[in-house]
Amino acid sequence: MQFASDNWSGAAPEIVEAIAHQAAGHADAYGVSALDRAVEDRFNALFEREVAVFFVGTGTSSNALALAAVNKPGGAVFCHRESHIVVDECGAVEFQTGGARLMQLDGPLGKIDPGEFTDAVSRFSPDFVHAGQPMALSLTQASEVGTIYTRQEVETLTAIAHSRDLPVHMDGARFANALVRLGESPADITWRQGVDILSFGGTKNGCVSAEALVFFDPKMAAELPYLRKRAGHLFSKTRFIAAQFQAYLADDLWLRLAAHANAMAERLRAGIESSDKARLAWPSETNESFAFLRREQATFLRKAGAVFLEWPRPHGVKLQEGEDEILVRLITNFQTSEDEVDRFVELLGARL
Amino acid sequence: MQFASDNWSGAAPEIVEAIAHQAAGHADAYGVSALDRAVEDRFNALFEREVAVFFVGTGTSSNALALAAVNKPGGAVFCHRESHIVVDECGAVEFQTGGARLMQLDGPLGKIDPGEFTDAVSRFSPDFVHAGQPMALSLTQASEVGTIYTRQEVETLTAIAHSRDLPVHMDGARFANALVRLGESPADITWRQGVDILSFGGTKNGCVSAEALVFFDPKMAAELPYLRKRAGHLFSKTRFIAAQFQAYLADDLWLRLAAHANAMAERLRAGIESSDKARLAWPSETNESFAFLRREQATFLRKAGAVFLEWPRPHGVKLQEGEDEILVRLITNFQTSEDEVDRFVELLGARL
Amino acid sequence: MQFASDNWSGAAPEIVEAIAHQAAGHADAYGVSALDRAVEDRFNALFEREVAVFFVGTGTSSNALALAAVNKPGGAVFCHRESHIVVDECGAVEFQTGGARLMQLDGPLGKIDPGEFTDAVSRFSPDFVHAGQPMALSLTQASEVGTIYTRQEVETLTAIAHSRDLPVHMDGARFANALVRLGESPADITWRQGVDILSFGGTKNGCVSAEALVFFDPKMAAELPYLRKRAGHLFSKTRFIAAQFQAYLADDLWLRLAAHANAMAERLRAGIESSDKARLAWPSETNESFAFLRREQATFLRKAGAVFLEWPRPHGVKLQEGEDEILVRLITNFQTSEDEVDRFVELLGARL
Amino acid sequence: MQFASDNWSGAAPEIVEAIAHQAAGHADAYGVSALDRAVEDRFNALFEREVAVFFVGTGTSSNALALAAVNKPGGAVFCHRESHIVVDECGAVEFQTGGARLMQLDGPLGKIDPGEFTDAVSRFSPDFVHAGQPMALSLTQASEVGTIYTRQEVETLTAIAHSRDLPVHMDGARFANALVRLGESPADITWRQGVDILSFGGTKNGCVSAEALVFFDPKMAAELPYLRKRAGHLFSKTRFIAAQFQAYLADDLWLRLAAHANAMAERLRAGIESSDKARLAWPSETNESFAFLRREQATFLRKAGAVFLEWPRPHGVKLQEGEDEILVRLITNFQTSEDEVDRFVELLGARL
Repeated sequence: MQFASDNWSGAAPEIVEAIAHQAAGHADAYGVSALDRAVEDRFNALFEREVAVFFVGTGTSSNALALAAVNKPGGAVFCHRESHIVVDECGAVEFQTGGARLMQLDGPLGKIDPGEFTDAVSRFSPDFVHAGQPMALSLTQASEVGTIYTRQEVETLTAIAHSRDLPVHMDGARFANALVRLGESPADITWRQGVDILSFGGTKNGCVSAEALVFFDPKMAAELPYLRKRAGHLFSKTRFIAAQFQAYLADDLWLRLAAHANAMAERLRAGIESSDKARLAWPSETNESFAFLRREQATFLRKAGAVFLEWPRPHGVKLQEGEDEILVRLITNFQTSEDEVDRFVELLGARL
Repeated sequence: MQFASDNWSGAAPEIVEAIAHQAAGHADAYGVSALDRAVEDRFNALFEREVAVFFVGTGTSSNALALAAVNKPGGAVFCHRESHIVVDECGAVEFQTGGARLMQLDGPLGKIDPGEFTDAVSRFSPDFVHAGQPMALSLTQASEVGTIYTRQEVETLTAIAHSRDLPVHMDGARFANALVRLGESPADITWRQGVDILSFGGTKNGCVSAEALVFFDPKMAAELPYLRKRAGHLFSKTRFIAAQFQAYLADDLWLRLAAHANAMAERLRAGIESSDKARLAWPSETNESFAFLRREQATFLRKAGAVFLEWPRPHGVKLQEGEDEILVRLITNFQTSEDEVDRFVELLGARL
Repeated sequence: MQFASDNWSGAAPEIVEAIAHQAAGHADAYGVSALDRAVEDRFNALFEREVAVFFVGTGTSSNALALAAVNKPGGAVFCHRESHIVVDECGAVEFQTGGARLMQLDGPLGKIDPGEFTDAVSRFSPDFVHAGQPMALSLTQASEVGTIYTRQEVETLTAIAHSRDLPVHMDGARFANALVRLGESPADITWRQGVDILSFGGTKNGCVSAEALVFFDPKMAAELPYLRKRAGHLFSKTRFIAAQFQAYLADDLWLRLAAHANAMAERLRAGIESSDKARLAWPSETNESFAFLRREQATFLRKAGAVFLEWPRPHGVKLQEGEDEILVRLITNFQTSEDEVDRFVELLGARL
Repeated sequence: MQFASDNWSGAAPEIVEAIAHQAAGHADAYGVSALDRAVEDRFNALFEREVAVFFVGTGTSSNALALAAVNKPGGAVFCHRESHIVVDECGAVEFQTGGARLMQLDGPLGKIDPGEFTDAVSRFSPDFVHAGQPMALSLTQASEVGTIYTRQEVETLTAIAHSRDLPVHMDGARFANALVRLGESPADITWRQGVDILSFGGTKNGCVSAEALVFFDPKMAAELPYLRKRAGHLFSKTRFIAAQFQAYLADDLWLRLAAHANAMAERLRAGIESSDKARLAWPSETNESFAFLRREQATFLRKAGAVFLEWPRPHGVKLQEGEDEILVRLITNFQTSEDEVDRFVELLGARL
């Protein structure tokens, strides 16, 4: 009953096989092997246009390099207060950009409120150098709290950004989970909605370590080869990342893995809803679920083998907590079994 | 006949197995799993003292974070003109430190001349802020041109550094190749000789992607967790790096792999020496060899399937080139077979 | 009727004379002249202890270098949402520190709420590297909205900071205005209350360009000479800054200038309070006043020659605006005359 | 007999008067006052085209911001080994650019050798990201050792730079000294010769603190307002810098001051040449002279009141030193009197 994080998962067998397959041979280093090139082409097909794609090892580097590519002195990046770049990356964007500032916006359930964004960006003016200058919008799809921007929501935000000449970055650490839930094409929920740069995550969804930084306008990536190398994120044996993506994208593996994780979360949420010992904190749509439990209940579940994290209450969310209740985050992943979920739900029903 | 780089190699079967072994389960993310801890302990044993060890994915990040850990404003890092941090890392040290300067020292065959170092460091004075301040010495063991610092040479240099309170970093991307050639213990050729920080490389010697940053004085690493994370070099599934090191260090795998690569290089060098169609440029001691070939010869070898790189002449090396001769680098690795070497030597003897 | 900013003022005659006095001679450059040393000693006397003092040219550089001196990777600086470093310095702190983050705290009338600070700092933990680490507290005395921390308020905040080993910086761009209002000694409202570093401003209070960065523990300033020089803030003819401070501190000039500016503001506020055409937005205590005017009134005043700025409403301040009212900031300075104030108040009474 | 540095000088009376003239009034802060605008126009006239000009306080900030404006990740700046940005700025360029590298070129007497430059820039290739990328050429006019690039020499170097799309920066800390010696127009020795950015110095030539950063293509300066502000180099009372430049450029003051300093240096060099107790180290053309003295002679001169510095021998200069001889630098400035020079020469003749 491992619900701590999709980062705690292992790797899908197909991914491991792909690594093993590359191990015997040799190939050009530093991202120019035939395999690297082939997988780059695969991304073109996936997104239905010519993209510039860069393989890196961590989501944090992917996000930070994406924003470094559109860096400006005194730059301000608009993002949600609960976004990963704000909460979980130890100032990686600030560091990689030499000091850009994250403008933390509010909005319900992890999604930026368009009015907040408009207000915040309107406070900047070329006549007032002291405040710095707007530099980018960064969205998280799916959000950090398990919600998903609808197509219309993304379009509204990117339109505001583009009206101010701001490029739009999407942190897609859980892009696959959002995609399968939305049931749309990768192109339709990215560049066709105005997204310029995508951090396309593989690690949380079955890879060992595979993140792709995708620029829908390759010109915007002109400096990325240097940005990536000077930051130490150009792997010598890049083909081991390329190989992971080759397997990940083959035969819809990535969609199947994400669909499974999502389905397990649905099953878990259904179980929680049917229980009178716990309740969902808000409606989530991906492999992340958030629930209230009494502390005593949480202790009991952990003793029985369930692994999950108590979670800080997201900013701006008004929640009615019962006495002695805690908020917990429950994440399923590609490895989660129905048995694990069912056992957890069963334990939830136990009279303590 | 792949002699381009040890970075072009694949991965040892034991390494791949170790990755596969981790794939099925799950574990704490971000470097705190039981496996991470166990492998850290393994490093303590290896170096016969308590060290602080940090797993990262690339040699460039390992070197840059090592020097960021001892960073000073206006800082000057003393290193060889041919070192990897100067020649091959796109300003990674400068970037990671926010602008430290690499003081490029000369010295024969890739090794810093102690007199040069003394002269260079003596030009700095606390009374002259304009010049900046000395910050660290960085050695490369084995050097970039296939040579190895003797025990005495390292001691001489670290003594100069320590007399000025400068910490000493060792870039050990090919540490194993140096170690097996020297036939000493890891402790004896590092901290017992005055080395404070070691970039311990695994990638070039059979790993997929595994580098360990080792601090012999853990206090010196106090900020490293933050430096690593903000630079995007903390992997979520770190245990896949830990697992590589577990296998790498088990049963002397790493020493066997390096010894094999070295032996193949010896065999290659013997072949070159016995040939009248090529000659060694200088005596190297590791898996890197440098030779002069006539251009016509090089073309012939390449057509026959040999892969190797033409190499810029190292600074300060006086070489007598024959007419139409080029300098080439030939690197063997853990996968190189005797047949590959012998075939190359045989081709070398062919009358064109 | 110039109430736009104390930055719009000129310079006191004594300051100009001091510059002129230095012009004819010559002296050692870069901060080591006899005059520099003498003025440094003057600061020791002023603060009743040995301090390390560094002359720079702008308040922004003073603040940013102060925080760079206590920099940490992934560092978080706690400060008020309305502070100058947040609102008016184009990311100077972030830049100078290579990416530290400003944690914007709330609190009534420009002063940090201790509870907010405690909460914010408590969210950090050495076990959670992802969030970064606390690095410093930065207070503004007087605040940006004309208020002043009482002795007790400063002590409460510095005690929280020190309990977490955080150094405390005070942005004293208008330190003199606060000091004369509080009627205490410089030592009593700084290091005796737990302040570690002071940006001691002279420019807004009658100097041409003179800011002193004061470290109450000289050891904390060990790297400052290098930080200042590499940032381009070491002036060659520093003695022209030293000379300004010499005159500024002689015969209580600085206190007299600030007392005058404050008195003019008091006079202005009394005039506004007695008017039924305007009203003070909140009670301020220094040379800054904030008032509500009807827009029509503001236009009339400007046509009559008054210079002042419309001001964004400070965060978290609940104000009852009448219909068509605007918030304006009125700053007096050492040059402001009673006539200017009286004329403004008289115009305020005019029937439009 | 003050020959230590032109930085040790005071300020011209006209400059001090200009400051005093501004002191009584008030004006818009932060570079937008009528005076700022008027002086900017004066620069347009001076350079016979529309330029973008930014006032700052130090030469180091001017140079560093100039290069930050054309920054690239992994960027390499080509400059002379003896240039101020290499030798005397504590890594300011590296810091302000977040890690660009200074590629130190040789060349006789402080001037870059075109062949060295061509060789160095040719080593970079877009196919080899590891080495970084060329970013700018930086010349010093007049050079740090008192020499001056001829018109043809500048054109040769800028042509090489532009053929590689590299912008050209000129460090003109002693621009006036070069200009009056060359007897050409400011336009003719800058943009008409291919210079893109000029650090136009006033401080060493009679100002208190006044440096102007001039972009001949204003588009190249698009980010400069933000770069300057975030670096803390936007002065609030900028008009005090503008006022200095107004006086400096009026009635050819700047040319007269520089011509005087140069003439005094000529007189000094003539005196040295006629002496058999000292000899010029190399032919210099500006207000800087370099000579060999016996150490005993230097001691005698100092005891008699002469102030000058012993100087490190410039790299690559072959000098025949006599036994016990030292190299000294002798700088005249706008304040140097004929009497000072004559007294020094007279003392030089003394039998010790």
